[in-house]
Amino acid sequence: MTTLDEVSGPGRLAEPDEGITAEELQLAARNHAMPLEALRYDVTPLGLHYLLIHYDIPDISPDTFRLEIDGRVGRPLSLDLAELRQRPRITQRVTLECAGNGRALLTPRPVSQPWLVEAVGTAEWTGCSLADLLRDAGPVDGAVEVVFTGADHGVERGVEQDYQRGLPLAEALRADAVLAYEMNGGPLPPQHGYPLRLVIPGWYGMAHVKWLRQITVVDTPFTGFQNDVAYRYRQEAGEYGDPVTRMRPRALVRPPGFPDFMSRVRVQPAGPVRITGRAWSGEAPVTRVEVTVDGGTTWADATLGVDTTAPWVWRSWTFDWAATPGRYVLGARATDASGQQQPVDQPWNRGGFANNLVQRVEVVVPDQST
Amino acid sequence: MTTLDEVSGPGRLAEPDEGITAEELQLAARNHAMPLEALRYDVTPLGLHYLLIHYDIPDISPDTFRLEIDGRVGRPLSLDLAELRQRPRITQRVTLECAGNGRALLTPRPVSQPWLVEAVGTAEWTGCSLADLLRDAGPVDGAVEVVFTGADHGVERGVEQDYQRGLPLAEALRADAVLAYEMNGGPLPPQHGYPLRLVIPGWYGMAHVKWLRQITVVDTPFTGFQNDVAYRYRQEAGEYGDPVTRMRPRALVRPPGFPDFMSRVRVQPAGPVRITGRAWSGEAPVTRVEVTVDGGTTWADATLGVDTTAPWVWRSWTFDWAATPGRYVLGARATDASGQQQPVDQPWNRGGFANNLVQRVEVVVPDQST
Repeated sequence: MTTLDEVSGPGRLAEPDEGITAEELQLAARNHAMPLEALRYDVTPLGLHYLLIHYDIPDISPDTFRLEIDGRVGRPLSLDLAELRQRPRITQRVTLECAGNGRALLTPRPVSQPWLVEAVGTAEWTGCSLADLLRDAGPVDGAVEVVFTGADHGVERGVEQDYQRGLPLAEALRADAVLAYEMNGGPLPPQHGYPLRLVIPGWYGMAHVKWLRQITVVDTPFTGFQNDVAYRYRQEAGEYGDPVTRMRPRALVRPPGFPDFMSRVRVQPAGPVRITGRAWSGEAPVTRVEVTVDGGTTWADATLGVDTTAPWVWRSWTFDWAATPGRYVLGARATDASGQQQPVDQPWNRGGFANNLVQRVEVVVPDQST
Repeated sequence: MTTLDEVSGPGRLAEPDEGITAEELQLAARNHAMPLEALRYDVTPLGLHYLLIHYDIPDISPDTFRLEIDGRVGRPLSLDLAELRQRPRITQRVTLECAGNGRALLTPRPVSQPWLVEAVGTAEWTGCSLADLLRDAGPVDGAVEVVFTGADHGVERGVEQDYQRGLPLAEALRADAVLAYEMNGGPLPPQHGYPLRLVIPGWYGMAHVKWLRQITVVDTPFTGFQNDVAYRYRQEAGEYGDPVTRMRPRALVRPPGFPDFMSRVRVQPAGPVRITGRAWSGEAPVTRVEVTVDGGTTWADATLGVDTTAPWVWRSWTFDWAATPGRYVLGARATDASGQQQPVDQPWNRGGFANNLVQRVEVVVPDQST
């Protein structure tokens, strides 16, 4: 018998000192992060925004594409792209981060997409209002969740599936939830969900279903793979666990100076240097960023940039540093209005989700004579 | 003393069974390959083309940017972007591959950017003619090479440098060499060299200098790091070696069916299936593509697509396969008009360059009852 089980292994943790595996490298070669120097852009240029694609990028014809809205609604709808574009346009600038960001830095390391710290990006998403469309369809009494189905198809842990995620109805009815057909003012690229994707500001990336083809209102919580198996916080394999939802606070330092090709260690000439970066949280607005140059032993407050108009957009910050010869480990930690702060000890869970442990940027300030 | 040596280690080979290292993963997270399903596009959409950035993406203002043409010329030139755009426009469709493509599959593995097989892409580059500009500057008698200097700055193996490559003058005078300021009909993105890059069709990526700021004609062969140290074919560390120049022939299979998330093994339903892919060579036009479904034991000819107008663009091919239940390893090998053929044994060298060993695509065709 040749069965689907042969293509999928069970989830596992890396052995102590086990290097990154060939399977993890395959994912890293496909799904790229945002080079950290791109923290200089308010809006991440196309091609630099992080990407996580579970299966393959589907090949969808705009001519035959339809979005179906069905399930527990009074008036099921079916719209083509022209009909979606005729609806009022809305644009949201949103910082989006993969729930697995930081996974490859955990000990022990959950074996999956091996993100370091930079699986993030900020884009301007334009499309029509999800809430308006749902109201047109009319969820019936008792509706609790909305299931979003993408056209991307594959196997995961032995389960063949189209990518599907359930979202609480109250979230789906938010005014800032977008069914996006444009990114950064141009057509949605294939790898970001062409022709249509969900954008649900504040949530980790797994909720922003790409290649969206169906929206189904349901009256019981969705128990599909991506909600009930994949994206949950667990300490043990058998646990049901809590769902992964919103982005936890994180600040990133834009590495100063210039890098070594292989080690990525930074060389910063001695003298005054303005350290810059970004910070965000999907839980509440960022209210404080602190910077360390000694790997977390001491902290000093950074200056926050002008507040953004939307709460789910990264906020800029600056910190003036008088660099003297030596070796340093830079990092920053964000605190948000809910009181959450980035940890200095790893927040481990079996899926490797939401590891917002403070970044470590190694910097060498050479002696001035060298 | 704190010196530059502290940021750079020497080049090395991985130990037997040494997994991918943290440093290799850092590079993989930044520098992405082309997801193999993008082989379906004649021209690779923006954001899916492979990227290799040695240091950081520089932040260049278009207002102050100037291209200097100097060295052994009769009339040194200095042009701003408007002056470059006023020159006659040329567009070249070019397939571009990283010289290190295939490196991470070598045994032993040279520790550097850990490419698998997909560090490739095809784009349309628009700009002005390098040859025309050089003729305007007038290389003097005895000029032999042209040195291209980028604005990207970093350290590599202890050597602080702006990225620089020398190219034989005869290559620089080819009619199809482009100083590109557009990619795929839009502005050159930051990560592909904004505002200006060299495109020298047929050569591996290291020759296509990005963030180009200076063109210097020289009368002795250039001995800078990227020509004399980095990009050379060597069996032993001490050797001078031969320079890495043009792309060796390679064919890639677009993986059929759908993938498993983690293993990337493909699931292909039984029945007739048209396998498709692309093939290219920088040495001479591709004249033959053969396909294997048994990991290289037997081969059958694929059907080549309509020839492209330029010799340096990948060529499509198709192969009809009657898939029956079982496990398969698909691959394809290209032969070009110079008689070169992709090897079935690894072409090892210490830098891990030009490993055009035949790809291995694992495919499971499930029993029809499952």
